[in-house]
Amino acid sequence: MTTAPTISDIHTAQRRLESHLHRTPILSSREIDSIAGARLLFKCENFQRTGSFKARGAFNAVLSLPAADAERGVVTHSSGNHAAALALAAKERGIAAHIVMPHTAPAPKKAAVAAYGGRIVECEPTLAARLAAAGAIMAETGAVMIPPFDSRDVAAGQGSCAMELMADATEPLDAITCPVGGGGLLAGTLVAVKETSPEILVIAAEPAAADDAARGFRTGALQPQVLPVATIADGLTTAMSEMTFGVMRRLADQVVTASEGAIIEAMRLIWSRMKIIVEPSCAVPLAAILEGSWDAKGRTVGVILTGGNVDLDRLPWTR
Amino acid sequence: MTTAPTISDIHTAQRRLESHLHRTPILSSREIDSIAGARLLFKCENFQRTGSFKARGAFNAVLSLPAADAERGVVTHSSGNHAAALALAAKERGIAAHIVMPHTAPAPKKAAVAAYGGRIVECEPTLAARLAAAGAIMAETGAVMIPPFDSRDVAAGQGSCAMELMADATEPLDAITCPVGGGGLLAGTLVAVKETSPEILVIAAEPAAADDAARGFRTGALQPQVLPVATIADGLTTAMSEMTFGVMRRLADQVVTASEGAIIEAMRLIWSRMKIIVEPSCAVPLAAILEGSWDAKGRTVGVILTGGNVDLDRLPWTR
Repeated sequence: MTTAPTISDIHTAQRRLESHLHRTPILSSREIDSIAGARLLFKCENFQRTGSFKARGAFNAVLSLPAADAERGVVTHSSGNHAAALALAAKERGIAAHIVMPHTAPAPKKAAVAAYGGRIVECEPTLAARLAAAGAIMAETGAVMIPPFDSRDVAAGQGSCAMELMADATEPLDAITCPVGGGGLLAGTLVAVKETSPEILVIAAEPAAADDAARGFRTGALQPQVLPVATIADGLTTAMSEMTFGVMRRLADQVVTASEGAIIEAMRLIWSRMKIIVEPSCAVPLAAILEGSWDAKGRTVGVILTGGNVDLDRLPWTR
Repeated sequence: MTTAPTISDIHTAQRRLESHLHRTPILSSREIDSIAGARLLFKCENFQRTGSFKARGAFNAVLSLPAADAERGVVTHSSGNHAAALALAAKERGIAAHIVMPHTAPAPKKAAVAAYGGRIVECEPTLAARLAAAGAIMAETGAVMIPPFDSRDVAAGQGSCAMELMADATEPLDAITCPVGGGGLLAGTLVAVKETSPEILVIAAEPAAADDAARGFRTGALQPQVLPVATIADGLTTAMSEMTFGVMRRLADQVVTASEGAIIEAMRLIWSRMKIIVEPSCAVPLAAILEGSWDAKGRTVGVILTGGNVDLDRLPWTR
């Protein structure tokens, strides 16, 4: 079984990533603070290289491979931000990245992977076909699988985001909130926060329409996602792994949900008041705050904005 | 005739504005640098209070009014970013702002002015009706007219933006480029740059479809805008004043134009690569660089992104 990252893994990741990735800024908006009744410090991973925090985990995993393994290349079967991040990380290390994608994947996602030099391998749009294609590549090339979240190195890389948020916040934080999909960012964030500043609450947020994490946290048992998943927050439809679920169960303070309407409203609020572009998944923690899913009132809260890769031709409010 | 701001006016404005407005960040994008073949440092006035640089001029004008004048309130007949900026500046000084707007003005613009506490006075959508309405308010209340650009105090406030850009740029600038509409930002920028670092080129950019500044710079005589003006850059349709034109003629290095297609493409490039929301008017200087309207190749260029107030329901590429 995959083991969870330690705080030492996260410190190592931070040093490793420093020269490759952006130390993203923290922005705030007095209008949004006033609507939320809380002081919100937004950590802007939408400005991260490749447009999302996924660059942290992918770079950390690729950069920590021993040379003999690295030279055989890397492979993954995610079609989202992790795929683009892995392609760029491999390119910067000068090795091959094989990205298995369903042939039905949206053209902009394929274009992003191709632009970063990834080799796209198309397959049928089923999990079985994706695993088979990835397995065939591994057998043929010896490439190392870098999963999107169920990996100690990947989760350690994601943890570097909360380390920067805690170090750079100009006011003491009462809480940190981030979205939870597969749970890589959440696991890294939990270890980073609870091993250094355990008094800071960590609140995970997910769409009510994809609430496997909340159900799992409540029942104490890893839950499958109930399919089909219908949420605008398409980055958060994955179920968790045993590793990420275990970290969440052990360290998270609360797991909350947000409705679809609140997610779209929060996304639009960030766009119109902060003048920055964020993905629907990003807006879930703010949506949960605005819906009162946990008591943020009067608190100073670090909110991780996870990414900004949206299809500008298809915005939720113009569909 | 209105007199031009001096560098001393701009220094005073900087000190006056410090505690009221944001020192906006400078962002860059290696992808856009690589497309442009230049190093571009973007000064993000879309993050300024009220969503545009206009807050600088409006706050400077309102804060510099003697108490006896200020208490009678202020008035303007702009319907765009200046109106919202003036409403907020007046609110912070605790005085009334009367904003004359045509009854045909878009609802979001009216809502922004109202949200900042401005008193909207509706009139027919003609210049004559706007002037008559403003004149009636001045006669009745004694309110002081704060014009959108033809004002020494307003232009001095706008000049504070270039001062910050020069001070905060981490690399020596070869040039600064900004859009030109009425010319308040350009006049302030020119005085700020040429009185402190005359070796930095200042390049004004405007839509080819609203090229009064370029025609005036070429012929040496103030030109009217040719009506009707059909450009997506709706913040740049105004003709210049004698004051702003005089400063441009005396100090600008070049006045260049960009096509409508290039403006939309540049706007979309900023949105998709930098993950920030900018108005079409903002994109004009980048569009001019990408079209090769002046020789930016290999240079380090400060680009003023003027504002981020767009109607998210009506994007140029989804119309």
